[in-house]
Amino acid sequence: MSVEVNGAASGPLCTDVLIVGAGPVGLFAAFEAGVIGLSCHIVDVLPRVGGQCVELYPDKPIYDIPAIPSCTARDLVDRLMEQIRPFDVPIHLDERVETVEQRDDGRWTVTTHRGRVFDVAAILLAAGNGAFVPQRIPLDEAAPLEGRHVHYSVPDIAKFAGRNVVVAGGGDSALDWALALRGVARRVTLVHRRNGFSAAVSSVEQMKRAVEAGEMDFMVGAIGALNAPGGTLESVELKQIGGTAQLEAEHVIALYGLVADLGPIANWGIAGVAGKLTVDTSNYETSRPGIFAVGDVANYPNKQKLILSGFHEASLALRKAYTYAYPDKKRVHVHSSYDTKLAEKVAATAV
Amino acid sequence: MSVEVNGAASGPLCTDVLIVGAGPVGLFAAFEAGVIGLSCHIVDVLPRVGGQCVELYPDKPIYDIPAIPSCTARDLVDRLMEQIRPFDVPIHLDERVETVEQRDDGRWTVTTHRGRVFDVAAILLAAGNGAFVPQRIPLDEAAPLEGRHVHYSVPDIAKFAGRNVVVAGGGDSALDWALALRGVARRVTLVHRRNGFSAAVSSVEQMKRAVEAGEMDFMVGAIGALNAPGGTLESVELKQIGGTAQLEAEHVIALYGLVADLGPIANWGIAGVAGKLTVDTSNYETSRPGIFAVGDVANYPNKQKLILSGFHEASLALRKAYTYAYPDKKRVHVHSSYDTKLAEKVAATAV
Repeated sequence: MSVEVNGAASGPLCTDVLIVGAGPVGLFAAFEAGVIGLSCHIVDVLPRVGGQCVELYPDKPIYDIPAIPSCTARDLVDRLMEQIRPFDVPIHLDERVETVEQRDDGRWTVTTHRGRVFDVAAILLAAGNGAFVPQRIPLDEAAPLEGRHVHYSVPDIAKFAGRNVVVAGGGDSALDWALALRGVARRVTLVHRRNGFSAAVSSVEQMKRAVEAGEMDFMVGAIGALNAPGGTLESVELKQIGGTAQLEAEHVIALYGLVADLGPIANWGIAGVAGKLTVDTSNYETSRPGIFAVGDVANYPNKQKLILSGFHEASLALRKAYTYAYPDKKRVHVHSSYDTKLAEKVAATAV
Repeated sequence: MSVEVNGAASGPLCTDVLIVGAGPVGLFAAFEAGVIGLSCHIVDVLPRVGGQCVELYPDKPIYDIPAIPSCTARDLVDRLMEQIRPFDVPIHLDERVETVEQRDDGRWTVTTHRGRVFDVAAILLAAGNGAFVPQRIPLDEAAPLEGRHVHYSVPDIAKFAGRNVVVAGGGDSALDWALALRGVARRVTLVHRRNGFSAAVSSVEQMKRAVEAGEMDFMVGAIGALNAPGGTLESVELKQIGGTAQLEAEHVIALYGLVADLGPIANWGIAGVAGKLTVDTSNYETSRPGIFAVGDVANYPNKQKLILSGFHEASLALRKAYTYAYPDKKRVHVHSSYDTKLAEKVAATAV
């Protein structure tokens, strides 16, 4: 397996199928691709394989993988990595697919945020619930200010030196950054919708002492408007019970936590509902022929969010994908027990 | 697990779902039923669990079960039996379902060939390719003679004493029985469509010596007609190259080998094509609402005969079956890692 994290961009990579997502379903898809004779690469936005289940519950037992009475998410992913070893699948981690374009010859050009370009016959989206991204301020005027006046992380604290800064949120990130900005910003105001926090008790106490000492402010309320005439943030309107307050501010740092988001895939023109992509259950193809969706990102009547469903969906999707990669070849189903080429590959890579 | 082979008939057994077939898909279906809170029984015509894959290739490696890089069919079935242990599912082996009837209250009465009666809310057919049954003589007049003049096995050789017997077939069974009948029948004629055999070389040589010695006959040809005026077999017409021959015979024993056959299920009024039952891929329900078909017995566009497909199909089918068993309850999806009742059951039965 060639696993690459944060790899350098290179020339177009030509392969049969691009699998987006290195969770259990994406990994098994790479195995099925290999079995039926398709080459593939995997891309995942996370810095490690395993997807959501390894991120969210690596050590909890899973009971409903067929013929595995109990295993952790980590075990499951280890087993799948062993299963795909015979096919030496390149996996590109910490890399997000950005744009897709179908060429005149029917093949697809996919570009990642690192500028890598894939040239593929089909795309299999096994993206789960999408990438975890910061929850954004739900105001139309927030997006144009993002990066200059509105922030969802703090890459460089020096940017805020001498400025009026509003930090929004009630968790550890919000409190930690509000406290850290005390000696840097001109004025720091923490705003949160209630006088109760999900941060560590010690941080909450430290914040309260800082407020008493006049080192920072805390106000209960929700951000109701961003006043930015000419694109320059001047003040934040805070909605409070029984009224509003205006806070002078050049910067807002909103630290509301992470939410799952499909990211750029949502702009690929694929029909869907509520962040899920609608597929045909005979081949798990989306509204854009050649792009397939399997696992939690796929939606159809009676869809169940079972890992085992994603395995089946990927198997069927890839058989349709095969017809795009090799339109003139007829694939014959061979039971894996009678697939001598597969047996040789497995034997050759056994440890 | 309560596994019963050749059990005595008893009063009606009331359960939520009757699973027909104890192959990998039927076994995993019992697990999924347990997980979502459905009770079930399993019936299989074979005398052991494991279905077709254990019958046909118990010790060959299977490579395409997700997260199990390699296992034999026997391993797979052992693992599934361990997985369903927490639910203590009754399994009735060596028992064939025969008739089905939907009652006015919507529930089903299913009767087996042993006279056992099930009273169930839904039926899940995981019957694979069906039971293996003898391939029959492809002539309309053969069926009414079956058991009296036409035979597909030899339960009692004494029946043929002093009779003219035609034995049809070119495999071990045909040659062995033809040889065994020499001293018993009045005259034994082996007929086979060509002068070449799939039987053991020693049997073929023994048969040729017996023909030379005048102890039996061998004729090349296919059975073209059975002449049985008044329902009593008098002669067999043999189609040969360039003509026909008439053989006096009171009995024909056809030993053409086994073929998979759905058996009585084929008469349940379920829509299908070529021995496969047509299902809706949103819930794997057949044309008879309340009867589901999963695994190799099910057919739909792009159906692949993968064991893992059967696992997914069963999971979706059972969720629809739940609505028949408990029309007023709302089932909420719980990830198995967060299902504390399941965790307790697994822990309680761990060995």
